[in-house]
Amino acid sequence: MGPSAVIEKEMPQTERPITFLRGSEDGDIRSRFEKMIRKAQDSICESIEAIDKIGKFKEDVWSRPGGGGGISRVLQDGAVWEKVGVNVSIVYGAVPPEANRATKASSSSDQKPVPIRFFAAGISSALHPKNPFAPTLHFNYRYFDTDAPKDVPGAPRQWWFGGGTDLTPAYIFEEDVKHFHSTQKKVCDKFDPAFYPRFKKWCDDYFYIKHRGERRGLGGIFFDDVNDYDQEMLLSFVTECANSVVPAYFPIIEKRKDMPFEEHHKAWQQLRRGRFVEFNLVYDGGTKFGLKSGGRIETVLVSLPLSARWEYDHKPEEGSEEWKLLDACINPREWI
Amino acid sequence: MGPSAVIEKEMPQTERPITFLRGSEDGDIRSRFEKMIRKAQDSICESIEAIDKIGKFKEDVWSRPGGGGGISRVLQDGAVWEKVGVNVSIVYGAVPPEANRATKASSSSDQKPVPIRFFAAGISSALHPKNPFAPTLHFNYRYFDTDAPKDVPGAPRQWWFGGGTDLTPAYIFEEDVKHFHSTQKKVCDKFDPAFYPRFKKWCDDYFYIKHRGERRGLGGIFFDDVNDYDQEMLLSFVTECANSVVPAYFPIIEKRKDMPFEEHHKAWQQLRRGRFVEFNLVYDGGTKFGLKSGGRIETVLVSLPLSARWEYDHKPEEGSEEWKLLDACINPREWI
Repeated sequence: MGPSAVIEKEMPQTERPITFLRGSEDGDIRSRFEKMIRKAQDSICESIEAIDKIGKFKEDVWSRPGGGGGISRVLQDGAVWEKVGVNVSIVYGAVPPEANRATKASSSSDQKPVPIRFFAAGISSALHPKNPFAPTLHFNYRYFDTDAPKDVPGAPRQWWFGGGTDLTPAYIFEEDVKHFHSTQKKVCDKFDPAFYPRFKKWCDDYFYIKHRGERRGLGGIFFDDVNDYDQEMLLSFVTECANSVVPAYFPIIEKRKDMPFEEHHKAWQQLRRGRFVEFNLVYDGGTKFGLKSGGRIETVLVSLPLSARWEYDHKPEEGSEEWKLLDACINPREWI
Repeated sequence: MGPSAVIEKEMPQTERPITFLRGSEDGDIRSRFEKMIRKAQDSICESIEAIDKIGKFKEDVWSRPGGGGGISRVLQDGAVWEKVGVNVSIVYGAVPPEANRATKASSSSDQKPVPIRFFAAGISSALHPKNPFAPTLHFNYRYFDTDAPKDVPGAPRQWWFGGGTDLTPAYIFEEDVKHFHSTQKKVCDKFDPAFYPRFKKWCDDYFYIKHRGERRGLGGIFFDDVNDYDQEMLLSFVTECANSVVPAYFPIIEKRKDMPFEEHHKAWQQLRRGRFVEFNLVYDGGTKFGLKSGGRIETVLVSLPLSARWEYDHKPEEGSEEWKLLDACINPREWI
């Protein structure tokens, strides 16, 4: 039995289906969410290819025998980005309770371990540029629901939204970080002035690499298990969040992608990518869920950078540009 | 508060103490185990510097306010190795039950969560060569005990040994892998003919990257929580295991360190190092214990390679040298 005998549970597909759903009504939240993330995937990928000029996305369409499927798009070794993944997945079925628990950012261990039937759909993406002055971007918007409990007649479906967009630079350009956070705030403020402060702090707390005492980057917004607002309002909110990825990030890329740099800048970027790997493999809820639930592994780990570095006991010189970045990862700042 | 304000719980020391123990008798197992691992650290580091010629170890001595301490030695950017860590640690105190559980390879969730007083000492090392034809080596030998239960008069101390030595090449040279496994078997056979088959299989099972369906490398020996033999016999066994690191590995390094290679060989080595990182951060018991227990982070993560790589959906061509390595990681072989 050779390596080719390792059959991924997911089946590759040659064609993109119009929908991964079975029997959902057109106006249903599941169907509308699927349409939204697929449209976002198309338009963001188009914008990326337009800036990169050289890199082209490779697409993998897969279906999950248990229910649903997804479209993975990866651009590798472009002119601007060394690796970009933009994935959508729309899956449903029954999950083991421990996998279900791993999806939640805050693990509540007093939850009852009963298997549940779920629907989970999301778009998730990480963009790792080549230039060490150009920041990595990560975003992820997802909708999750479970079937209405059968033993309670008329009981509603349980549902929630999650997501966020965050920036991980190796060097701080104050104007870039301000622009990025301002764009997030503007979107948030259209819905609720409480959103930005709440989701900004949530982001700083979530992307915390506990064993380092550092955040992965300079934050943005993050939220999980949000269902304490009107469902329509939240759907509009995550739609606008996804639509703000391009205006929040691409002007920064345009400014930084061709900046001259030296080898030591690249080495520092690689060290910070090591932190990105540490966060994703050790703490990230989505990655943990993917690893435990036996998701398509290349999709689960596509957010990892093309390359990363671990130097023993590296400490940037006090006051240096590297030190300033580290300081902001240790002590999150208000950028606006 | 800048990055310099992050105080590691461990205190750096300027001088190596004669012992990290407090009040142990000279003939005590704890003291003898400490002497053994410190002697092994000295002689292995000496051998490494002798082959590398350019690289020199940097030493960090640290003490743990709760009890004990350690010596971390790291060689970076040598001629032969790009990163080598050889650490000893001798620590004792009270551990939270969840950290205690993480040290065990097989997690038994029916264990009662009571805090225990422990003693843990070990030598651990990872050697990552530059040349893609020269394999990475990892070894680790440790002794663990807990205080005798106070409520049972005359009850003995609980103790166990663990450890192993394993080889992680990017390319297979049959003669190298055979030599490596033969050396392990020879040491095992001196003590019990059942050791090698048992510990070889344990190694294949332990270094399994479940989400990939692959082992990290080509194995060797591994065992954990072993106490079902005479304590003196096991102490001699782990001593001989530690002493066999040089004869098992260094002849391979001598043969491979200067082999000519091309860029694609190096890229494949970097991809396999990505798997090494995945195993260590997601599955390795020692790393998990270190991350959860708040151990000195630079020591806990020193086994990570200097650099690693993640390409999306990389599949070696069937029948290629890369494919053969992957095949052996998926389907463990008997090498002797």
